[in-house]
Amino acid sequence: MKILIDCHGGDNSPRANVLGALRAMERYPDLEAIFVGDEARINALLAENGSQPGGRISVVHAPEVITGEEKPTDAIRLKKDSSMIRAIKLLREDPEISALVSTGATGSLVAAATLRIGRIRGVRRPAFCPILPTMDGGMVGICDSGANVDITVDQLRQFAILGSRYLENVYGVEKPRVALLNIGTETEKGDALRREAYPMLEKVADINFVGNMESRDLLSGKYDLVVCDGFSGNVLVKTTEGTALELLKKIKKDIYSKTVYKMGALLMKRMFADMKEFMNYQNYGGSVLLGTEKTIVKGHGSSDEAAVAKCVDQAYAVEKNRMNEKIEASLKASAPDEE
Amino acid sequence: MKILIDCHGGDNSPRANVLGALRAMERYPDLEAIFVGDEARINALLAENGSQPGGRISVVHAPEVITGEEKPTDAIRLKKDSSMIRAIKLLREDPEISALVSTGATGSLVAAATLRIGRIRGVRRPAFCPILPTMDGGMVGICDSGANVDITVDQLRQFAILGSRYLENVYGVEKPRVALLNIGTETEKGDALRREAYPMLEKVADINFVGNMESRDLLSGKYDLVVCDGFSGNVLVKTTEGTALELLKKIKKDIYSKTVYKMGALLMKRMFADMKEFMNYQNYGGSVLLGTEKTIVKGHGSSDEAAVAKCVDQAYAVEKNRMNEKIEASLKASAPDEE
Repeated sequence: MKILIDCHGGDNSPRANVLGALRAMERYPDLEAIFVGDEARINALLAENGSQPGGRISVVHAPEVITGEEKPTDAIRLKKDSSMIRAIKLLREDPEISALVSTGATGSLVAAATLRIGRIRGVRRPAFCPILPTMDGGMVGICDSGANVDITVDQLRQFAILGSRYLENVYGVEKPRVALLNIGTETEKGDALRREAYPMLEKVADINFVGNMESRDLLSGKYDLVVCDGFSGNVLVKTTEGTALELLKKIKKDIYSKTVYKMGALLMKRMFADMKEFMNYQNYGGSVLLGTEKTIVKGHGSSDEAAVAKCVDQAYAVEKNRMNEKIEASLKASAPDEE
Repeated sequence: MKILIDCHGGDNSPRANVLGALRAMERYPDLEAIFVGDEARINALLAENGSQPGGRISVVHAPEVITGEEKPTDAIRLKKDSSMIRAIKLLREDPEISALVSTGATGSLVAAATLRIGRIRGVRRPAFCPILPTMDGGMVGICDSGANVDITVDQLRQFAILGSRYLENVYGVEKPRVALLNIGTETEKGDALRREAYPMLEKVADINFVGNMESRDLLSGKYDLVVCDGFSGNVLVKTTEGTALELLKKIKKDIYSKTVYKMGALLMKRMFADMKEFMNYQNYGGSVLLGTEKTIVKGHGSSDEAAVAKCVDQAYAVEKNRMNEKIEASLKASAPDEE
């Protein structure tokens, strides 16, 4: 299996990207990595790790970097020598390459993927499905979390299928419990989109729809997958991350305000460290862009080595378990009559 | 000033409603309260507090209760003897009554208010504006948080004006910094609604628009008011509350898992208590329904005495500072040309 590693665009690039991918390669003897980025810097990092191009490792020189400030359409048009656009081109053109892992600018990545990479038969638009840890030690996926802000009811059906197959194939969740993000749990709650979506989701084959979810229950462990438009999904994910982060910051500040608190915190050092680790999104990998013919995993911009390695794990599992074929079959089975 | 107290519908009703309102009355010598609910129970609670009907206190018998499970349209039509519907009727018919405080079912309250209580001239639909504490010790208002799920761009203009006048008049915030909830901070981000709203908000007189806000920055203290459709606003508020609650629950559980943590937590007892208090939404009052001719304050269903007293404070401040007249003037000043 061949996977492209876009080596630029993250806060810790190219180091985290190169070393993270190498770490994942140790786990999968059949995995080959193609590093795309500044060749000299990549080679130096490989050497640092006792590796070099050849065998399961190759390097493609593409030194330009796309930043989050650039307009995606401009980036795609003007930065052909950027690691991201070169990687997308290779992914499109080489039938032997299965996947791409990138920690670069999300907007440009989605735009390039949408324009250049084909979709799975039946998919209208690809969608992101990030994973958050739940308070009972489990996890919950959110689809879509920002790739599609203006959507139709039928896209919600697709998000439910894409996310269900993803949780089954990459995380081994059986019959993922699918909820519709809404402003109340009652059937008739919500805006026009949600009121139309509810009865539709009840009828979709191949998904385990359990009803509406209020956002305050996201971390409760009662749901495996939440389907939503990309706008409110983005609000859901980023509010959760933001609130957790701000609270931890506040606890830290409060601890330093009094000596007795500092003493108490010393005894609880291990607990706070575990908690921080529990909430560290880096441990849960990147967001897989679901629905494209070839797998694209978007790691967080601040990804470290371990986080990049996790992204490679995700790409590997998607391919190994032939997730896309299962998505195609489900979409076909559940297509509404009017299609 | 006469304020109605709907005494049913909350988890701690009628006790919290009656005693909470009495507590607020001590602060405002010119405040008269009309308690609506089960007369015998209200009289018993008044007696317990050494009070009785007469003078600044009166009681209206309306013993039925509307629950959150009832369909709002049915509740309004069938439960005419409920405390909520009787209170709305009195608010509508008696020109001397200024406001209503209720901890009852939100859906029925909004529906009854929308149908029976007039709007401020120029207001399309009333909107909720709950307040959350920010991590720098300040606060942030969110308008709308659920009363309007399908909205127009012009309603976002109205939410910005309603919320700005509210923060000025009830909380003394000068030139509230208004942000548009979006999925990124760049001008052109978001769905069709947001992309159209941004340049419109830049032109509105009487508001201090500072740009887009990503949901992860809600508690940062950088914004005083966030404007959004009621669907994503609801997600924003409830995700924040839910995440904070789940995290506190997790901390508590973790503490009890080891003796050394319990010892540490003992030293930090005061800190955790302060933190819990800081995040207790009861301390921040209820959500004022902005845009109705007469003031309606919706307290949380779990409101205790102190929370009900806070709701009365809010109603009092709205009336005392003639907020609605200022809203009307602002709406007129900023009305788009097409109106």
